[in-house]
Amino acid sequence: MVEQFVVGVDVGGQTSKIGVVNAAGEILSQSVIRSDVYGSDADAFLSALADAIKANIADSGKEGQIKGVGVGAPNANYYTGTVSYAPNLAWAADKEVKFAEELSAKLGGIPVILTNDANAAAVGEMTYGVAQDLKHFIMITLGTGVGSGIIVNGQLLYGHDGFAGELGHTKVQENGRLCGCGGKGCLEAYCSATGVARTAREILDTTEEPSLLRSLDNITSKDVYDAAKEGDAVAMKIFDFTARLLGKSLANFVSFSSPQAIVLFGGLARAKEFLYEPMMEAMNENLLHQWKGKIQILFSSLKESDAAILGASSLAW
Amino acid sequence: MVEQFVVGVDVGGQTSKIGVVNAAGEILSQSVIRSDVYGSDADAFLSALADAIKANIADSGKEGQIKGVGVGAPNANYYTGTVSYAPNLAWAADKEVKFAEELSAKLGGIPVILTNDANAAAVGEMTYGVAQDLKHFIMITLGTGVGSGIIVNGQLLYGHDGFAGELGHTKVQENGRLCGCGGKGCLEAYCSATGVARTAREILDTTEEPSLLRSLDNITSKDVYDAAKEGDAVAMKIFDFTARLLGKSLANFVSFSSPQAIVLFGGLARAKEFLYEPMMEAMNENLLHQWKGKIQILFSSLKESDAAILGASSLAW
Repeated sequence: MVEQFVVGVDVGGQTSKIGVVNAAGEILSQSVIRSDVYGSDADAFLSALADAIKANIADSGKEGQIKGVGVGAPNANYYTGTVSYAPNLAWAADKEVKFAEELSAKLGGIPVILTNDANAAAVGEMTYGVAQDLKHFIMITLGTGVGSGIIVNGQLLYGHDGFAGELGHTKVQENGRLCGCGGKGCLEAYCSATGVARTAREILDTTEEPSLLRSLDNITSKDVYDAAKEGDAVAMKIFDFTARLLGKSLANFVSFSSPQAIVLFGGLARAKEFLYEPMMEAMNENLLHQWKGKIQILFSSLKESDAAILGASSLAW
Repeated sequence: MVEQFVVGVDVGGQTSKIGVVNAAGEILSQSVIRSDVYGSDADAFLSALADAIKANIADSGKEGQIKGVGVGAPNANYYTGTVSYAPNLAWAADKEVKFAEELSAKLGGIPVILTNDANAAAVGEMTYGVAQDLKHFIMITLGTGVGSGIIVNGQLLYGHDGFAGELGHTKVQENGRLCGCGGKGCLEAYCSATGVARTAREILDTTEEPSLLRSLDNITSKDVYDAAKEGDAVAMKIFDFTARLLGKSLANFVSFSSPQAIVLFGGLARAKEFLYEPMMEAMNENLLHQWKGKIQILFSSLKESDAAILGASSLAW
């Protein structure tokens, strides 16, 4: 039998990453294209993506051996194969794009499977990462936004319409911050990289405490991390606030699906050393008796640049 | 082939209800025993329950045709067949009781299947009630406490340990009311019958507004309902507060499993006329774009006294 390969595609707001992957989860060839230079023209983006996928397949020397293409994208739907109303993708911001169908046509009929980016990360972690032995876990992606993929009995939870697992938009604060979704008090408005930056500005504005962050114009979550590394007390407070709010939310999620573990992934998860303890403490304070001290919080073991491609690709097997 | 029957048992804090049920969901014979007169002696309760089940089977004339016994009980676990640390059951308040194994032994080996009471209600609703055509819904039981049973792809969500679906203990208020579980700000402390009574006292204590409720010593949720029926403005406010908090929580639950509908059941659900509109409005305000206006809120169509027995019995098929 001829060996088979899959293509993994991670569609992001700024760039999309493409890789040809073998059954062992090794990336044979990979490339990156821009996602943000096509305006509202979805067909132009899909054509550029199809060309990049074809070039990648040619580079890998595996033409004719591609079983399918797995794609992770924001606001993507597994059931319908569409990307719709994705605020961070100009070509899908105000409409529904038949992504899977149109990309497959441009690839001469190679099957295309689509899911949202956090779901892809969850499957990647289960196939290649720290969740390989877990049948019940929740993946939380802490990036520009907060995404989630929920695994129940070893399978992604899709719900009746394919949109299950939008935990970044559960409400965590009464009359809280306005979120990109239009709602108020969403977890994403606090526990994303941008949420951390907003917390930084709020805390700096309401205390006189000296901080390395005061000299910066445009504070990012990376700046907060660097300051915390230097022992900056305000930076520590920012992470402590973020971690406690996240921990309390995790307890709510456990009450829902009773997972063995929560897996954290994404840029902000790199601040593990500042987040872990207060997050674990807040989670356990808010858990029912039967779960206290029993739910693990794990951090993704996959290289971030690879994880998204691997996760998406594993859908195509 | 000989026709088969099942027994449904609903174990509650004060009483336990037993019924013999046929495949059409008709209760052939039923009885009630006290649950609260055995102190901490679980064996005494199980013996009394076994006797009552045997008497019921004899009454129905279906000896030898019983396929199994399905039991719904607070803090019951489907995987382990145990009832453990149930604050409202003195004989299981501080220990784990091997309920299924011991009851089965007392019944000469008839299989006993156990699940928590809200899960049993969800299965009952799916088998005989308003959820017969639904494969994705969340049952919320609004009684003395708030319980939940989550149906995904037509099956109960149990999680890794059998305890999934404790939505009554998700946190809905920062530094909120103390709950029976020891936690603070749980949904159950607000949207249960007892929660409504607490809200009533709080609102009466902080306004001067005249109300029919002011003359009462020990306000119950039933009193609030009766007053609202008379057009009492304070009673309406109490239900409005309850409904809005519940609606917002329902939006969080939808973000998790994306159900087609939420089904409400239990004493408080009888106040539908006062709860429905503000609850629906608060849920839709807090839902993401793709769900707004699309998620139904249904009220159980089963007679409350029968529903628990039917739900539990349907586990045994």
